[in-house]
Amino acid sequence: MKDIQVGLIGFGNIGAGVVKLLRENCDVIVNKVGARIVLKRIADLDITSDRGVEVPPGVLTTNVNDIFDDPEISVVIELIGGYEPAKSFVLKAIERGKHIVTANKALLALHGPDIYAAAIAKGVEVQFEASVGGGIPVLTAIKSNLAANRFSSVFGIMNGTCNYILTRMTQEGAAFAEVLQAAKELGYAEPDPTFDVEGVDTAHKLAVLVSLCFGTRIAFADIHTEGISNISGLDVKYAAQFGYRIKLLAIGKHVDGEIEARVHPTMIPLNSPLADVNGVFNAIRLTGDFVGPVMFSGRGAGQNPTASAIVGDLIGLARTMKAGAGRRMSPLGFLDEAITTIPVKPMADIVSKYMLRFSALDKPGVLGNIASSLGSHGISIESMVQTAHEADDTAPVPIVIMTHEAREGSIQQALAEIDRQDIICEKTSFIRIEDNLE
Amino acid sequence: MKDIQVGLIGFGNIGAGVVKLLRENCDVIVNKVGARIVLKRIADLDITSDRGVEVPPGVLTTNVNDIFDDPEISVVIELIGGYEPAKSFVLKAIERGKHIVTANKALLALHGPDIYAAAIAKGVEVQFEASVGGGIPVLTAIKSNLAANRFSSVFGIMNGTCNYILTRMTQEGAAFAEVLQAAKELGYAEPDPTFDVEGVDTAHKLAVLVSLCFGTRIAFADIHTEGISNISGLDVKYAAQFGYRIKLLAIGKHVDGEIEARVHPTMIPLNSPLADVNGVFNAIRLTGDFVGPVMFSGRGAGQNPTASAIVGDLIGLARTMKAGAGRRMSPLGFLDEAITTIPVKPMADIVSKYMLRFSALDKPGVLGNIASSLGSHGISIESMVQTAHEADDTAPVPIVIMTHEAREGSIQQALAEIDRQDIICEKTSFIRIEDNLE
Repeated sequence: MKDIQVGLIGFGNIGAGVVKLLRENCDVIVNKVGARIVLKRIADLDITSDRGVEVPPGVLTTNVNDIFDDPEISVVIELIGGYEPAKSFVLKAIERGKHIVTANKALLALHGPDIYAAAIAKGVEVQFEASVGGGIPVLTAIKSNLAANRFSSVFGIMNGTCNYILTRMTQEGAAFAEVLQAAKELGYAEPDPTFDVEGVDTAHKLAVLVSLCFGTRIAFADIHTEGISNISGLDVKYAAQFGYRIKLLAIGKHVDGEIEARVHPTMIPLNSPLADVNGVFNAIRLTGDFVGPVMFSGRGAGQNPTASAIVGDLIGLARTMKAGAGRRMSPLGFLDEAITTIPVKPMADIVSKYMLRFSALDKPGVLGNIASSLGSHGISIESMVQTAHEADDTAPVPIVIMTHEAREGSIQQALAEIDRQDIICEKTSFIRIEDNLE
Repeated sequence: MKDIQVGLIGFGNIGAGVVKLLRENCDVIVNKVGARIVLKRIADLDITSDRGVEVPPGVLTTNVNDIFDDPEISVVIELIGGYEPAKSFVLKAIERGKHIVTANKALLALHGPDIYAAAIAKGVEVQFEASVGGGIPVLTAIKSNLAANRFSSVFGIMNGTCNYILTRMTQEGAAFAEVLQAAKELGYAEPDPTFDVEGVDTAHKLAVLVSLCFGTRIAFADIHTEGISNISGLDVKYAAQFGYRIKLLAIGKHVDGEIEARVHPTMIPLNSPLADVNGVFNAIRLTGDFVGPVMFSGRGAGQNPTASAIVGDLIGLARTMKAGAGRRMSPLGFLDEAITTIPVKPMADIVSKYMLRFSALDKPGVLGNIASSLGSHGISIESMVQTAHEADDTAPVPIVIMTHEAREGSIQQALAEIDRQDIICEKTSFIRIEDNLE
């Protein structure tokens, strides 16, 4: 049987993992495909640094056209990341009739529709299992085994850096800045961790999940995105006191013809399986009308798990090629003409429970004042904790309120109003609560 | 686009679910396949009982040959369960060139190799995602997305009846017989629950998982199978005291050229994600050399989740047919010639930690006696609890011992020797411990 010839663009850490996996498990792959999967060319600007893996002579090139122009190469793996030149390279490979495998969630979140349309027009496949959840095979499950379902929701803990930081803040009562520093030193956070810590990476992944689950084109700007840099040790402590854990949660819902797509710190019940997803582990939980809730978890990043997903995509493509077929499935699992643009619910219209943490002067009437402001916006209180004052009775005291379900817009208006009062010492913090993870 | 015509054999609860799903989510399926999936004929001996779903006239038949003889029918769903006539029907459908979708784990566990060989010879596919874990898409993940990995272990909680019973025993301190009776009344246990409660159903599913993960033919008789009917409230209580929960666990391992395949009540650490899989939920956890540990959970049975998996298989086959290909993948994901017969480690040779619960007379020297018997078989003690005696000092007292790792054969010999002594009042119970679920 003829080898499947593959080109790789971008020879970084993940690329080296792919090289390693294809060599170490060559026999496993041959046993499942009936052919070898061979990395014929690897293109990168830097072809001299040691990646810790051996590459046969003649494979490395600084000229990406060596991949595009090689008619034997039927699949191109894109691992350079970012928007450009990744997008141009992917489009050029498609134009040359090559299937695409990519781990680039940023590219798919912002330019997915262009790439999918080009692939459909050319009759090639685009596979991207590694873009969400590392080695966790959730995307294919949505596109294939669970494809008969109408999905109502998808929730994900999908950024290892954030989850590591929040886990340590929870377990050790440590502060955000301190844990972030430690995470950088351990290599769990990038030197510039903005994309991770501010939720952008998670939002990229949510964009991919939402497209697949609901068959919709979603504008990345429509995903409300907040990170974890404002979460304090106090928030973590009070959340625990009320029976919750704070996670950076990606939330996708499809209800009554509208979509919710948002990423923000979220309080989830301690007894929820997602609450126990700790450290660098990722988990995705989705609910379909027939399958009910299903959850997937595993290592969401790293050289080896990501390589596992990429080579899994290659094996799928190789099987389809061997069966004599061209394109077997459209990129999102939906026919192109079936993909719609479902309106995204404005953030002000979402309904949630909230934990509000006020920093207020310790004066009589303060609580009544806050409660009536909330009430005047239709927000009712489920429970409340006011910490007894210790020594200095002029210092502000924290007042923590759990609300019943309320409109986000009402919460924002009420807090703006309350924060203007002299009794309030700093901007009130609020964290959304997700009680029902189905 | 031409409809995909399907025949269904066995119109029970799951069959009715398939009818319902194909109708209710017809638009979802068309949007993903570009064709309708139509149940052209449904064969059952009873075609008059009301299944709660509407079937167009002319679809129901008592003559299964109406399916075999119909050249338009390209896929046959087998849902009659059991060995015969299921096996003959499946082989006949394959002979007629029809793809097979089945949920029948008993059939696959005992006759899988015959069926797979027939399908490979004829160039048709056999899909069986619904046979393990209901709607949880674990089998396809193993065959496809995770296919680049060498798997070292697979663990599963895969029987809802057992898990429901053990969960209630744990949460309420209730006795096995009492909870089983309640489960029968609630419909969570069959009137004759033997296959579930004695671990046979779980062992069928483990046989399927082990074949897929390790690419081996496994004789069903080689799977050591114990159920939960001997688990007492005392076992559950002591397990909790030592930081464990008892689950009916399916264990598959591939180490040093040998396979372990066993189903038995197992103590797993309270902080393991599998310990929190409660009630009728199922979970499967596997470890591959590149992906690391991955876990899948969801509803492991029931009409709707099982129908989700069956129609997911149909969608996969429909996509392959639409792409113009015949067989895209062999039944186990391995090439037929790559499937071997890996020897199964004899149960006496497995190594595990154990909780031993002795019922002994409350006499001086008893503990020393037990400890030296264990020691003489090379079994060392990690910790021990001897409950203080209450009123009647002639009644037996429980002595509970946690061992370090020991050979099963040594444990069996030591307990046989100890149980022969007059100081022991009833057969000593032992439960295996699985500390490392990777």
